[in-house]
Amino acid sequence: MKPKIIKTIQEMQNTKLSGKVGFVPTMGFLHKGHLSLIRAAKRDCDTVVVSIFVNPSQFGPNEDLSQYPRDFVQDVKLLSGLEVDYIFFPTEKEMYPDDFKTWVNVDKITTILCGKSRPIHFQGVTTIVAKLMNIVNPDMMFLGEKDFQQIVVLEQMIRDLNFKTKIVRCPLIREKDGLAMSSRNKYLSEKGRQEALCLYLSLLQAKSEFQNGNFDSLSMKKKMEKLIHKNNGIIDYIEFVDPTSLESKAKVRKGDRVLLAVWIEDTRLIDNMEI
Amino acid sequence: MKPKIIKTIQEMQNTKLSGKVGFVPTMGFLHKGHLSLIRAAKRDCDTVVVSIFVNPSQFGPNEDLSQYPRDFVQDVKLLSGLEVDYIFFPTEKEMYPDDFKTWVNVDKITTILCGKSRPIHFQGVTTIVAKLMNIVNPDMMFLGEKDFQQIVVLEQMIRDLNFKTKIVRCPLIREKDGLAMSSRNKYLSEKGRQEALCLYLSLLQAKSEFQNGNFDSLSMKKKMEKLIHKNNGIIDYIEFVDPTSLESKAKVRKGDRVLLAVWIEDTRLIDNMEI
Repeated sequence: MKPKIIKTIQEMQNTKLSGKVGFVPTMGFLHKGHLSLIRAAKRDCDTVVVSIFVNPSQFGPNEDLSQYPRDFVQDVKLLSGLEVDYIFFPTEKEMYPDDFKTWVNVDKITTILCGKSRPIHFQGVTTIVAKLMNIVNPDMMFLGEKDFQQIVVLEQMIRDLNFKTKIVRCPLIREKDGLAMSSRNKYLSEKGRQEALCLYLSLLQAKSEFQNGNFDSLSMKKKMEKLIHKNNGIIDYIEFVDPTSLESKAKVRKGDRVLLAVWIEDTRLIDNMEI
Repeated sequence: MKPKIIKTIQEMQNTKLSGKVGFVPTMGFLHKGHLSLIRAAKRDCDTVVVSIFVNPSQFGPNEDLSQYPRDFVQDVKLLSGLEVDYIFFPTEKEMYPDDFKTWVNVDKITTILCGKSRPIHFQGVTTIVAKLMNIVNPDMMFLGEKDFQQIVVLEQMIRDLNFKTKIVRCPLIREKDGLAMSSRNKYLSEKGRQEALCLYLSLLQAKSEFQNGNFDSLSMKKKMEKLIHKNNGIIDYIEFVDPTSLESKAKVRKGDRVLLAVWIEDTRLIDNMEI
């Protein structure tokens, strides 16, 4: 059955959703990573809502908003196949009317890691997700660990502002060779696509270092840098962090996480792995 | 019947409220202004929840948080008399746990008028009200026009973040001689209490000027200043504004509003009136 497509906030808010409601917020151009979130929602919930909205407020002025890939027809086909109940597909004007003035800000954990090079990114993410939660009113929201910092930030917002929605963390999904699934992989040339594998390989390297008894994040980081540089990657950051607080760890423990952002050609890619 | 007193967020969120839910957020020390809001809620709704919480985040570092008047026993007595169903009475720790990091910010309309001399005030207000709306989940929230800018700011937040709660504006309530009801009136000496009347009298003066054909805000303002200075008031601001946008008006029209904040003794009082 084709999902019902809803374009206005009012219609979405007035739609009675039955049973436990699962929600997957996306920017469209769906790949297997998104589909795994939707399958998890279908498994756990009675009604599943997927939003498709390329959120302008989370893109910086020099970022890739205008070229961000879109394919609504293909998205609807994929969502039909998964028997999604509703697609919320609003316009930019619907979500950000002319006199829009309100922003949700999470302190501290939004200014590190990706927040350093993307200073307004998380403000855009928290604001749009607060709006979407008020519009869809879901019991559970399914998010992928590919955007690990984003999950931690949104969990903090939900806790602090007492939203009733629970976040369900879903594992990162990789291509066969290990590259993390991302709509932005589409930007890469064939050569870049090969080089991009260095993110995954450097994470594997750190994990194996750790398993062989190296707990020193600095020395692991140096080895990762070497591998990435060899593949023409330009490093934005590599950090070993506590998975809850995102605090940097000098001495790494089991359960900590290594996060990185690397430019391959003109594309900024992120990835992460539990150590 | 005595209202049920609820102290934790979890219990409040798990309480099934029946029918149309009305909510009146307060900082306690209830006066007739508050009681008029509660009567309006009783009239329009099936279940009425009143919160009592002196919200620290809306007080600046040099403001009157520590001396803000409290009288929970008397408040409960008054709320029992009005047959309120629930009192939400959380601790500071419950509302702001140690790792609290999230703030709701409304741009522009929070930096003018009261926002000029109280730069963090509205951030505290919008954040606590967003929390309370998520905790109580009311259909309607009843607010007094005494805090006129606060209503405009909260309406903007509700619209922008798509909260489903509707704000019901209730008229400002005055003492017999015209002084706007406020918990802070308690701070005034007998002499100050007399002087404080100049806020109301200057508003009346502006209104009568306008009715006599003076549309020039500057000249009306000058006359108000004179009256206030004669009563030893120190003016924070006097502004003639559009009631929706809060934009300053040089030429005043019917329906515009005059807002003012004046220090009497050590107490900052606010008042406003439709022209």
